[in-house]
Amino acid sequence: MRRSRTLVAVCVALACFAVAGQVLSAEGTQPQLSWEEYRDHLGLRSIADVEASPVGKEGGFAVDAAWTLFAAILVFWMQAGFALLETGFTRAKNAVNILMKNLVDFSVGSVAYWLVGFGLMFGATNGFCGQTGFMLSGHENDTWSYTFLIFQTVFAGTSATIVSGALAERTKFSAYILYSLLITVAIYPIFGSWVWGSAVDGSGWLEAPPDGVLDRLGLPPFIDFAGSTVVHSVGAWVGLAGVLFLGPRLGKYGENSKPLRGHSMSLATLGVFILWMGWFGFNCGSTTSVAGGLGPHDGSGKAIGLIAVNTNLGACAGALAAMITVWIRTGKPEIGMTLNGVLAGLVSITASCSVINPISALVIGAIGGVIVVFAVDFFERLEIDDPVGALSVHGICGAWGTIAAALFHYEGFRPAQLATQLIGVISAFVWAFAGGALIFWLLKITIGLRVDPNDEIDGLDLSEHGGEAYPREEF
Amino acid sequence: MRRSRTLVAVCVALACFAVAGQVLSAEGTQPQLSWEEYRDHLGLRSIADVEASPVGKEGGFAVDAAWTLFAAILVFWMQAGFALLETGFTRAKNAVNILMKNLVDFSVGSVAYWLVGFGLMFGATNGFCGQTGFMLSGHENDTWSYTFLIFQTVFAGTSATIVSGALAERTKFSAYILYSLLITVAIYPIFGSWVWGSAVDGSGWLEAPPDGVLDRLGLPPFIDFAGSTVVHSVGAWVGLAGVLFLGPRLGKYGENSKPLRGHSMSLATLGVFILWMGWFGFNCGSTTSVAGGLGPHDGSGKAIGLIAVNTNLGACAGALAAMITVWIRTGKPEIGMTLNGVLAGLVSITASCSVINPISALVIGAIGGVIVVFAVDFFERLEIDDPVGALSVHGICGAWGTIAAALFHYEGFRPAQLATQLIGVISAFVWAFAGGALIFWLLKITIGLRVDPNDEIDGLDLSEHGGEAYPREEF
Amino acid sequence: MRRSRTLVAVCVALACFAVAGQVLSAEGTQPQLSWEEYRDHLGLRSIADVEASPVGKEGGFAVDAAWTLFAAILVFWMQAGFALLETGFTRAKNAVNILMKNLVDFSVGSVAYWLVGFGLMFGATNGFCGQTGFMLSGHENDTWSYTFLIFQTVFAGTSATIVSGALAERTKFSAYILYSLLITVAIYPIFGSWVWGSAVDGSGWLEAPPDGVLDRLGLPPFIDFAGSTVVHSVGAWVGLAGVLFLGPRLGKYGENSKPLRGHSMSLATLGVFILWMGWFGFNCGSTTSVAGGLGPHDGSGKAIGLIAVNTNLGACAGALAAMITVWIRTGKPEIGMTLNGVLAGLVSITASCSVINPISALVIGAIGGVIVVFAVDFFERLEIDDPVGALSVHGICGAWGTIAAALFHYEGFRPAQLATQLIGVISAFVWAFAGGALIFWLLKITIGLRVDPNDEIDGLDLSEHGGEAYPREEF
Repeated sequence: MRRSRTLVAVCVALACFAVAGQVLSAEGTQPQLSWEEYRDHLGLRSIADVEASPVGKEGGFAVDAAWTLFAAILVFWMQAGFALLETGFTRAKNAVNILMKNLVDFSVGSVAYWLVGFGLMFGATNGFCGQTGFMLSGHENDTWSYTFLIFQTVFAGTSATIVSGALAERTKFSAYILYSLLITVAIYPIFGSWVWGSAVDGSGWLEAPPDGVLDRLGLPPFIDFAGSTVVHSVGAWVGLAGVLFLGPRLGKYGENSKPLRGHSMSLATLGVFILWMGWFGFNCGSTTSVAGGLGPHDGSGKAIGLIAVNTNLGACAGALAAMITVWIRTGKPEIGMTLNGVLAGLVSITASCSVINPISALVIGAIGGVIVVFAVDFFERLEIDDPVGALSVHGICGAWGTIAAALFHYEGFRPAQLATQLIGVISAFVWAFAGGALIFWLLKITIGLRVDPNDEIDGLDLSEHGGEAYPREEF
Repeated sequence: MRRSRTLVAVCVALACFAVAGQVLSAEGTQPQLSWEEYRDHLGLRSIADVEASPVGKEGGFAVDAAWTLFAAILVFWMQAGFALLETGFTRAKNAVNILMKNLVDFSVGSVAYWLVGFGLMFGATNGFCGQTGFMLSGHENDTWSYTFLIFQTVFAGTSATIVSGALAERTKFSAYILYSLLITVAIYPIFGSWVWGSAVDGSGWLEAPPDGVLDRLGLPPFIDFAGSTVVHSVGAWVGLAGVLFLGPRLGKYGENSKPLRGHSMSLATLGVFILWMGWFGFNCGSTTSVAGGLGPHDGSGKAIGLIAVNTNLGACAGALAAMITVWIRTGKPEIGMTLNGVLAGLVSITASCSVINPISALVIGAIGGVIVVFAVDFFERLEIDDPVGALSVHGICGAWGTIAAALFHYEGFRPAQLATQLIGVISAFVWAFAGGALIFWLLKITIGLRVDPNDEIDGLDLSEHGGEAYPREEF
Repeated sequence: MRRSRTLVAVCVALACFAVAGQVLSAEGTQPQLSWEEYRDHLGLRSIADVEASPVGKEGGFAVDAAWTLFAAILVFWMQAGFALLETGFTRAKNAVNILMKNLVDFSVGSVAYWLVGFGLMFGATNGFCGQTGFMLSGHENDTWSYTFLIFQTVFAGTSATIVSGALAERTKFSAYILYSLLITVAIYPIFGSWVWGSAVDGSGWLEAPPDGVLDRLGLPPFIDFAGSTVVHSVGAWVGLAGVLFLGPRLGKYGENSKPLRGHSMSLATLGVFILWMGWFGFNCGSTTSVAGGLGPHDGSGKAIGLIAVNTNLGACAGALAAMITVWIRTGKPEIGMTLNGVLAGLVSITASCSVINPISALVIGAIGGVIVVFAVDFFERLEIDDPVGALSVHGICGAWGTIAAALFHYEGFRPAQLATQLIGVISAFVWAFAGGALIFWLLKITIGLRVDPNDEIDGLDLSEHGGEAYPREEF
C-alpha cells in the first residue's frame, strides 16, 4: 500500500511541477500601473510615505528597522521552539538527531536563502520567480534591505524546520541536510514570490497584477498576511511528500506495535511557549512597520496591537478547543493534543490576523483547535506516520486559516476572495507537494532517505551522531 | 486544626466580601477636576501630550505602541517561566499537570479578560468597578487600545498563574480551570480598577480621587507602579485561600513524612531566568511609554533605564541576601532558596521601581531576600503547604515592596504615603483572600477541589491527564 | 608538569601586571582635540547630533533608549544560555553547582559593576582607568545614563560567566564568588576602559588618542565593535589562568580515565539557541542607537540590519564548518562540536560585524568554526581541562575575530590596522591572564580553589549545595 502511494506521489509531483513552471512563467507581470501605484493598491507602505511623514527618514525608518529586527529575533527564537517541541515529542534515543536537524537546517537555510532564496523571492520577477537581488546585490545601499533580509531569512528557516518533525526518528541526517538546502533555495522562495514578491520588486501572480490570471478572472489578490500558507502549509506539504517516501517508523503500525511516546513533556511545553512568544514577532512583525503596515491602520501603531490581540486569542482558543475535544473523546485533557491545539490556533490565525476582529480570531482559532484533533486521527488512519503532528498543525490548519481570511474579513465576506484563497491553498499544495516529492524521490534513489533498521532501533543518536543526548555517568 | 482554619477563613471571607462591595460602590468618583487635570495630577501621559510633542502622533504613538507590545511579549514569556519553575520544584509524577495548568490558565484567562476583565478594570467605573469597554466595545478605534489590552491581558495572566504553584500536586484540574476563570473575570480586575483604573477611563478609590475616602483622609494616591500588590499579592492571597481549603499534600507533614523535593533544578533555574528577563518587560513596560511614563522623566527615555537598573539590582540583591541567609542558617548555599530570592527581590522592587534610586533598590531587594527565607519557614510551621513558596514570594514580598515604596521614595519619606500603602496592602489581602475563599469554598462544595488520595499518590499526570511527562521507552 | 606551568604562570602574571600598570598610567590622555572633535573622529554619535536631528530629543533619545534597553534584555538572557550550555555539557552530579555559579556571578557582578566597574570603565580616565562615575554619581541626570549602565552591566556579566564553564566540576563555590567579584570590579572594566572608554568620558590608550602610544606609532584605533576581545577573550584568558591553577578534573587524564560526558544535550542545545538569540542584542545593540551607531550608517537604521545579517551568517558558517570538520575527522557530525561551532562563529564575528560585508562574515565564521575544533584538541593535548571548550570558543576565536576585523574591513586591508589589532589581542592576553593568575593564586593560598577529592567524586551538588538537581522521588 505504501509503495503504490509513493508511486502515485512521484507521478503527480513531476507532472504538476512541469506544468506549473510552464504556465506560470508565461504569466508575466507587465504592470499597467506604475510600481508605486501598484504597491499603493496593495496597501504597502512605500519609502516615499515614510520620508514624507512628520517623523521622516531618520525617525520613521529607524523605528521600523528596529521593530522589524526585533520581530526577526523573535522568529529566530521559534527555531528553538521547534527544536524542543520535536525533541520532547520523540524518543530520547533520537534527541541528538532532532536537535541537530533543527540547528543545521537553519544554518544551511540562512546561507542558502542569502545566496539564492531572497533573490528568487523578492528580486525582479519573470512571472515565475525573482531573478535579481542574489546576495542582496543591487540592494547593498537600500535603506533597510539588510533588516528585511534577516526578517525573511528567519521566515524561510521556519518553513524548512517544520519538516523535521514530520520526518523524525528515521531519516538520514545527510539526506535531511540536502532537503533543507533545496526547500530554502527553491520551493519556499518561489512560492513566496507569487504572494509576497511585490514587497520589494516585482509582483507574483497570486498578488493579482493587472492582466494576470487572477485579474482576468476578476479575482482580488490572495490574502496571507503572515504565512499560514506561504510558510506553514508549504513546509507541511513538503513534509507530507517526505513522509510518504520514508514510510512509518518501525513498530508504529501493524502487529506488535506499541505507542511511540515522546520522552519529555517539559521540553515540549517549553517549546510551545517559545513558539507562542515567537509568533508575536511572526505576525505583528509582518507589518514591517510600526506606524503603518498592512491591514487597518491610521499611523498610530494600532495595527500591531490588533494583530497581537488576534494572535493571542487564536492561540488560546486553539488550546481550549483542542483540549475540550480530546477530553470529550478520550475522557482526559491530554497534554500533547493541547500543545498542538495552541499551534493549530496560531497557524490558523496567521493568514488573517491583520484583517479580522478579535471575535473572529476566537472562532478561527477554536475551529483550528478542533480540526487538529481530527486531522491527527485522519493521518493516523491512513498510516501516514507524523511523529509530532506537523502535517495536521501546519498543513491542514494552514489551509483552514487561509480560507478563514475570506470568511471572516472585517470588510465582510466576498465570494471572489474565497475563490482566490482556494486557488492559493491549492497552488501551495500542488507546488510544495510536487517539489517535495521530487526532492525526496531524488534523495531516495541517490544517497538514500532512511537509516538502516538496526540503527533505527538503536536510535539515531548513536548511529548518526556517535553520542547520546543523556549519557549515563561512568565516573 | 486545618478544619478550624478553613472555617474561620470562610467566615472572614464572606463578611469582608460583602462589606467591601457595599462600602466601595458607595465611594463614587465625581471628580471636581476634569479627567485631563486629574490624569495630569497622577502624572499620566495623555494622548494630547503625545500629539503635541515634537514627534507627534505618528512617531510618538508608534514608538510607544512598539515599546508596550515588546513589554507585553516579555510578560507573556513569564508564563513559561512560572511553568518551568513550578515544574522543576514539584515531583515528576505531577509535571504534566502543572504544565497544563500554566498553559490553560493563561488560555482561559486571556479570553475571559478580553470578554469581561478589561472592562471591569479600565471601563468607566461606578466606584466599585468598570462598567464599559467589554470586548473593547467603544474603544475599537482608540489609538492604541489593542496594544494596551494585550499588555493588560498578560498582567492578568501573571496574577492567575501564581496560584498554580501554591496549589500544586493535589488540585483537580477542572476545579483549577474554574478558579482561573474567576480570578480573571472578577478578583484581579476589580482590585486593579481601584488602583490603575484611571489609565483609561475613570478612577479607583485607591487613586485618591477628589472627595473619595483617601482624599477626605488627606492621603495621597496609592503607589504600586507595576503591581507588587495589584498583581503579585492579589494572586498570592487568592492562593492562600486555596491552600487552606485544599490542605497539605499527602506525606508532607505528620508521621512518615518525607521531603517532597522538586524533580529538576535545571528547569527551575531556567524558569527563574525567564522570569527575570520577563520582569524587565513587566516593570519597564509599565511606563507604557518610552519618552514619558510615570516616575522621574524628562522626555528622554530615562525612566525606562532607571527602572531597568532598579529591577536588576533588586533581583541581584534578593538572590544574594536569600543565599547568604540560608547559608548562615543551614551551612549550605541552597539553590531553591536562592532562586526564590531572585523572585523575592523582583516582587519587592515592582511597586517602587520608578520612584526610587538604585541604592534603595539594593536595600529593598536584599530585605525581600531575607524576608522570603523566614516567610517560607513561617508557612511551613503553620503547616500551610505551598510547594513552590509562592505565598512567601508573591504575598509577603509583595506587601513588603508596596510598603517600601513609601519608605524609600526619592522625594523622601512621608507618613501619609505610608498610611495609603498600608491601606492598599490590607485592602488587597481582604479582597483577594475573601474572594479566593469564596471561590474555593464554592468549588469544594460543588465539583470538589482535591483529587482522590490514590490518584495523588500515583501522580496527577496519569489520573488527570492520562499520560506521564517522561514515559519510559517501550520500543 | 602542571606544577611548573602554574609557577611560570604566576611569575608571568605578576610581572606583566606590574609593568602594565606602570606603563599605562603614564600614558595619559591630554587630547589636543576637543572631546566633541575626538568623539566625532571615532565616529560616535553625540548627544548634539541627536538633538539636532529631525526627530530631536524626544523621539531620538527615546527610540535609542528603547533599542538599547531591548538589546540589554537580550544580553541578560545570554546568562540563561551560558547556564544551560554549561549544565548540559557537564555531569548531572554538578548541575546545581554550575547553575548556581551562573546565577550568582551575575548577581555579584551586577552590584559590583554598578558600584565600581562602570566608573573604572567609563569614568574620566587617568590613562589607566576611569576615576569618576561610581554608582553613576555625577551622571544621575544624564539623559540615558541608566540605560547605558544596564547595557554595560550585562556585558560585564557575560565576560564573568564565561569562566564558570572552564572551571566547572571542581571549583569551590566560595572561591568562585570571590573571583566573579574581582573580574567585574577590576579586570574586565579596566581593560574595557582602554577600548571603549570614550563612549562616555575620556579615552583609553587603545582608542589611539592624540599623542598616545598608538598615535605616536602612527597606528589607528583598535577595532572591537562588540567585544570579541574586550568581553570574550578577556573572560577566556582569566579562565585559562584559573584552569592552570585548578588542574584537571579527577579521572579526566591518566590511567583509568574515562570520558566525562555532559548529561543533557537538550539543555546544551537550548543554551546555544538562547546565546544565538541574545547575540543579536549583543552585536546589534552595540550601536546603542537605531538611526546612527558605529559602522556604515546613514541615519536609516541600516547598520543594525547589516550587523544582524553578519551575526547570523557568522553563526551559521561556524556551525557548518565545525560540523563538517568533525565529521571528516571522526566520521560523525557530533553535536557538542557543532554547538561550539555556532558559538565560535558568533565570537569570531563580534569584533567586526559592523565593518564587514556579509560574504566576509561567512568566511570569518567558517574559519572560526574550523579553528574551534583544532583549538579544543590543542588544549586537550596539553591536558588543560576545559569541560565546555570555553577557552577555545571565547579565547582563541575571540583573538581570531579581532584580527579578522583588520583582514576583512570593508574599506580594505591596512597593515597598520592589523598591527593595532595584534597589539590589542596581546594586551588582552597579558592583562587578563596576569590578572586572572593573580586572583586565582591569591584564592588558592587563602581560602583554597578546589573542592576535596571525595566531594568531587560525590559531586559538588551534595557537598557544596546540600541537594541534588534531579532527586529521586521518595514518595
